[in-house]
Amino acid sequence: MFTLFFSPNACSLASHIALAESGLPYQLRRVNFAKDEQRSPDYLKHNPNGRVPALVTDKGTLIESPAILAFIAQAAPEAKLAPLDDAFEFARMQGFNSYIASTVHVAYAHKRRGYRWAEKPESLEDMAAKMPRNMGDSFAVIENDLFEGPYVLGENYSVADCYLFTMADWLGGAGVDINAFPKVAEHYRRLRQRPAVQRALETEKEAAAA
Amino acid sequence: MFTLFFSPNACSLASHIALAESGLPYQLRRVNFAKDEQRSPDYLKHNPNGRVPALVTDKGTLIESPAILAFIAQAAPEAKLAPLDDAFEFARMQGFNSYIASTVHVAYAHKRRGYRWAEKPESLEDMAAKMPRNMGDSFAVIENDLFEGPYVLGENYSVADCYLFTMADWLGGAGVDINAFPKVAEHYRRLRQRPAVQRALETEKEAAAA
Repeated sequence: MFTLFFSPNACSLASHIALAESGLPYQLRRVNFAKDEQRSPDYLKHNPNGRVPALVTDKGTLIESPAILAFIAQAAPEAKLAPLDDAFEFARMQGFNSYIASTVHVAYAHKRRGYRWAEKPESLEDMAAKMPRNMGDSFAVIENDLFEGPYVLGENYSVADCYLFTMADWLGGAGVDINAFPKVAEHYRRLRQRPAVQRALETEKEAAAA
Repeated sequence: MFTLFFSPNACSLASHIALAESGLPYQLRRVNFAKDEQRSPDYLKHNPNGRVPALVTDKGTLIESPAILAFIAQAAPEAKLAPLDDAFEFARMQGFNSYIASTVHVAYAHKRRGYRWAEKPESLEDMAAKMPRNMGDSFAVIENDLFEGPYVLGENYSVADCYLFTMADWLGGAGVDINAFPKVAEHYRRLRQRPAVQRALETEKEAAAA
């Protein structure tokens, strides 16, 4: 039984969707950011970096979305959530997920979490003002270059789709019109129809309201 | 034959060292940042994100250090550069590499590349001033929590060590004393003695001087 530490609508949604797709048994543990639980000694034991997601397994705890996503795919090979038998395609998936983690998510974090990298209120305002352009630029790279279609890697669904969906879900809040990226927009609407995606969204909505 | 696009002393050094360790045939292509070659149409065909590294293979081009590092390990299983037969350990390696890419490298980039995330000169100064603290904080997490010893994952060398070495090599330029992190410092000095690391460093030094 896996335990996923998550926060509603954080990047942990990607791992949550992947678990829902996998057919594996799992439970969820909410990390309440409003109560700063990600900085609590209890949580830091799981993830010393104080971020979600963290995935507790019987061998220990895993951190970082790209690692957790690939691990879920490997733990449930019958769910076919990654090109496990093709090292090049697997690396293409990992490259996409790493781009999301280190460029797209980082761009978004400069809106509300600029204090990680600067101190002065004016700097944080400057970062927040630039964020929509950076999100737009990084989604343009996805739309024009990285997204194969109909799924991220081409014909086959993978955990990269769970991760792209999660970032696309943030575009509205980032002040970026998803329809500027027609392939991403169509992918987003199509993924919203998947039962696993709907279950994960519903569960996170309930958790946020609790 | 693989072709690695690199820039001397950039994060591509990790992939360069991994190739040197792998025993696989490869060639290097320098991307000259001083001439802004990373933004040239020729290079953007390889990596639409305009960054190094990029690894050209006979199946296509891979981007992002964590993906390239794992791929090199999988392409040369006899070099034992990753725990390929243990999905949990492999994910632990990927989690470490993703932490480097999306937290440590991103922290460092706020020194000289703050223009990615803000516009005003004062904001860039503010970011640059905070960078050493963020690098120190992220290396403290490595020293205290993520680094197993004597290598990142424990007894066995892996591409995570190539990546950690590359970041540790930046600490001096970041104004952070590596000796504040005794395990990382010992690891850094030990890795400098490895023939593959010395070859890669020497080759990049020659390329930078050419």
